Amino acid sequence: MIPADDRGLTLGDGLFETVLALSGRLVDWDAHLQRMAAGCQVLGLPAPDAAGADQLARAALAAAGLGEGRAAVRLTLTAGSGGRGLDRPQAPAPRMFATAAPAPAPAAPARLVTAAVRRNADSPASRLKTLAYLDNVLAREEARAAGADEAVMLNTRGELACAAAANLFWIRQGRLETPDLACGVLAGVMRARVLAAAARLGVAATEVRAPEAVLEDAEAVFLTNSLIGVRPVAAWNGRSFPASPLVDRLAAAA
Amino acid sequence: MIPADDRGLTLGDGLFETVLALSGRLVDWDAHLQRMAAGCQVLGLPAPDAAGADQLARAALAAAGLGEGRAAVRLTLTAGSGGRGLDRPQAPAPRMFATAAPAPAPAAPARLVTAAVRRNADSPASRLKTLAYLDNVLAREEARAAGADEAVMLNTRGELACAAAANLFWIRQGRLETPDLACGVLAGVMRARVLAAAARLGVAATEVRAPEAVLEDAEAVFLTNSLIGVRPVAAWNGRSFPASPLVDRLAAAA
Repeated sequence: MIPADDRGLTLGDGLFETVLALSGRLVDWDAHLQRMAAGCQVLGLPAPDAAGADQLARAALAAAGLGEGRAAVRLTLTAGSGGRGLDRPQAPAPRMFATAAPAPAPAAPARLVTAAVRRNADSPASRLKTLAYLDNVLAREEARAAGADEAVMLNTRGELACAAAANLFWIRQGRLETPDLACGVLAGVMRARVLAAAARLGVAATEVRAPEAVLEDAEAVFLTNSLIGVRPVAAWNGRSFPASPLVDRLAAAA
Repeated sequence: MIPADDRGLTLGDGLFETVLALSGRLVDWDAHLQRMAAGCQVLGLPAPDAAGADQLARAALAAAGLGEGRAAVRLTLTAGSGGRGLDRPQAPAPRMFATAAPAPAPAAPARLVTAAVRRNADSPASRLKTLAYLDNVLAREEARAAGADEAVMLNTRGELACAAAANLFWIRQGRLETPDLACGVLAGVMRARVLAAAARLGVAATEVRAPEAVLEDAEAVFLTNSLIGVRPVAAWNGRSFPASPLVDRLAAAA
């Protein structure tokens, strides 16, 4: 239970991380904590206590009876309790908590549609995993309403950004491309692993600022996040993509 | 206390209203509830129960010992508890609660600066008072860091939108102007009262899509919200504005 005056609840003032746990092992835990600490710096909050975060994650897994198998741990950090209005207290006392749930089962290739809701390219929050996640919720709802699984989100400049809950990659002329972080994109932990895998495999990879139309020339499209890993895309706006051996190689190597 | 799995907390999935209470009388209460109901429709949530909201507001005032004098009641509605991920449960059960605090004292004329953080003109959330309020928190922080009281927020198309926690008006060539709702603006209850007061006083008023530069031609600028009423602006980006008899007349009539 969280107090009703928590600024995470009242104003979306906070951050979260979603981490894969494999039989209690927190995958890429340090990378997730580093990303949260970097986000805290942008938001002007003290960095999370690493030992405390680790304890919270382990306690959440134990409480949910998810010490074995695949689980999803969510670590949430808020700006803590605050009074009325937008201004933080003089000395914010962040609040941190963790929950655990069964990890989602590996899903079939995704069917995407482009959402009307866009990422705010003029807010630093668009590059963070903040509690103010409503635009992504609305984008996902649009996709569901259109009979798709997931949304492609453009940013407010009309550039490709991401999916509602994943990073976006595509293959074009044999090259791997993904939106640049400057497009309003979360620096996904799995995104970084895929880019590193491409480098190891000798696959040319570029972070780009690209209009939506480049997906029309794509040979393959896929999504990444820490829970799903690499998820191929079967269709986008009604256009189909065949299975891609290159995507499979990247998935295996990431 | 609110459960840690509340979607208002985890994703900013919800709405709020801030209402002035004068010795227990909730000013413009029906207008606030109607706006919340309209927001629920946009977000795909059931409308709030009016009788329940009323009870919550009165209980919050009583609990805070604020039955007399000026108080601020905040009514919060979240999408309720939800599982892991972005998708809402099949039948969302919204959660509503209210808190009360002393209303802010009438403040001196505001000093504004334009924030780098902008309103997302490509999200319906920009026209609602949602729990995903972090962009406004960041805009306010920018203003404070620059030695100002409050931020002017442009939208992502570069049009004037609002302040971090208020609607924005200005007088230009004797006419009253305020950003159109399509600019990513909350339909403020006090904004509507000021527009109605202008009509009664025979003051020409227009809702406009305007670039920031129009403020350079403004004879006066002011802010409105339900708690502050009409607050004159003393300066914007270092440019000073004199006191305005017309703003005083509008404030008295609203």
